[in-house]
Amino acid sequence: MKKKLKKVNAAILIIGNEILSGRTQDKNIAFISNWLNMECGISVEEARVIQDNRKIIIKNILSLSKKFNYVFTTGGIGPTHDDITGESISKAFKVKYEFHKEAYKILLNYYGKKKFNDGRKKMAKMPKGSSLIYNPASAAPGFKIKNIFCLPGVPSILVSMIVNCKKFLNKGSKTFSKSINLYTVESKIAKDLGHIQKRYLRSVEIGSYPFFRLGRVGVSIVIRSKNISKLNICEKLIKKMAKGKKINIYSNYNENL
Amino acid sequence: MKKKLKKVNAAILIIGNEILSGRTQDKNIAFISNWLNMECGISVEEARVIQDNRKIIIKNILSLSKKFNYVFTTGGIGPTHDDITGESISKAFKVKYEFHKEAYKILLNYYGKKKFNDGRKKMAKMPKGSSLIYNPASAAPGFKIKNIFCLPGVPSILVSMIVNCKKFLNKGSKTFSKSINLYTVESKIAKDLGHIQKRYLRSVEIGSYPFFRLGRVGVSIVIRSKNISKLNICEKLIKKMAKGKKINIYSNYNENL
Repeated sequence: MKKKLKKVNAAILIIGNEILSGRTQDKNIAFISNWLNMECGISVEEARVIQDNRKIIIKNILSLSKKFNYVFTTGGIGPTHDDITGESISKAFKVKYEFHKEAYKILLNYYGKKKFNDGRKKMAKMPKGSSLIYNPASAAPGFKIKNIFCLPGVPSILVSMIVNCKKFLNKGSKTFSKSINLYTVESKIAKDLGHIQKRYLRSVEIGSYPFFRLGRVGVSIVIRSKNISKLNICEKLIKKMAKGKKINIYSNYNENL
Repeated sequence: MKKKLKKVNAAILIIGNEILSGRTQDKNIAFISNWLNMECGISVEEARVIQDNRKIIIKNILSLSKKFNYVFTTGGIGPTHDDITGESISKAFKVKYEFHKEAYKILLNYYGKKKFNDGRKKMAKMPKGSSLIYNPASAAPGFKIKNIFCLPGVPSILVSMIVNCKKFLNKGSKTFSKSINLYTVESKIAKDLGHIQKRYLRSVEIGSYPFFRLGRVGVSIVIRSKNISKLNICEKLIKKMAKGKKINIYSNYNENL
């Protein structure tokens, strides 16, 4: 019995001048990618960082939503003037930008009538037809419309709520990965590694990354595949190659099995 | 005498499965953005992370090189099979992918004849007509062709060589930025901040970012502009607003003046 491998892909759209200016170090791409693969078997195939600009957001939402199964946006769903993600997505899909009744209730309940000012009310506005992504950290929900998932930019809040995206997602086959870290330099193994990659072109992705640790240079070979048995054969071939070349293995581990 | 402000923009293209999979945390976007603004007055307006895939690299190179004054790529210029940036850019611009004589000499000299194997020779191959970006850290140069600058993915090596891009770049006007950090919440200042932004829509960009420090919440207001006098007026207005609302200023500083 052969299990059919299912490919589901996604793109990440980071909306925020603070990332593009270099002021803030993005952490959301790595976190979302990892989570999607580990929890849902979804592979992130592209990530973009764009400005807080309506036209640019609209253009990117339309093109990415066509090209990928899912799109995850971060940033631009707070109470201030530069939070324009919801408004822009409404325009992109030509739907109303309006109060979401349940989101309004959640926020009213969280802040209380007296403290529920215009800025906070804005966080209940979404494209018509959105489903809520609940936020256990700070109440203000994210939302899902069509294949777009809108999450906040603050990493700690995003982390707390991403699990609530799960019920909307079709799962794919997880990509497994292993690391074989060798005490060598890339050029010494480039040729043989290329041969192994050719043999497994469609099923195993082989990456090679130099490292410097405790004054010694080495190469991390990272192999990734949805097919665990091919991954294992590939690992053996790489270790055999290392042995043949008298290269010491610094470490060898499963990254996410 | 009014100095005319000059806008020069750029895009960053991160090429690497290891970033997209979430295995490796990107650091190059923030570093390159900061450097381009501080040293050359060039604003990064978009960043993309894409897979090690010829077709995808070609498509992105062609579209970004048309849209922006400069494009900075990172990754894919090493000796292994997954290093396909140079080859793909040659295809994109329909020029030969061949040994660059000077790069070949540099590498031969660095490794010596005996150790100059095929993998290392590969690092001297570039699109025909490329200019070298010298690498003081590990010899293998990057290259510039048309408005594309190809740099390595390893941050420490990239950092060592980016200064060598400078001679190829037309400078723009630097974007200055200031931070006003307030002990408040976004919704309390959203309306007034929106008014100030409206007044300076075309000259000052105002960003608002919540923070959590030592158990207290606050908001960082970051103002950015190429026009220093408008930036100063804007800063005064924001501080006046804070005073009017009895909001304490946690800190207030020039980020890059």
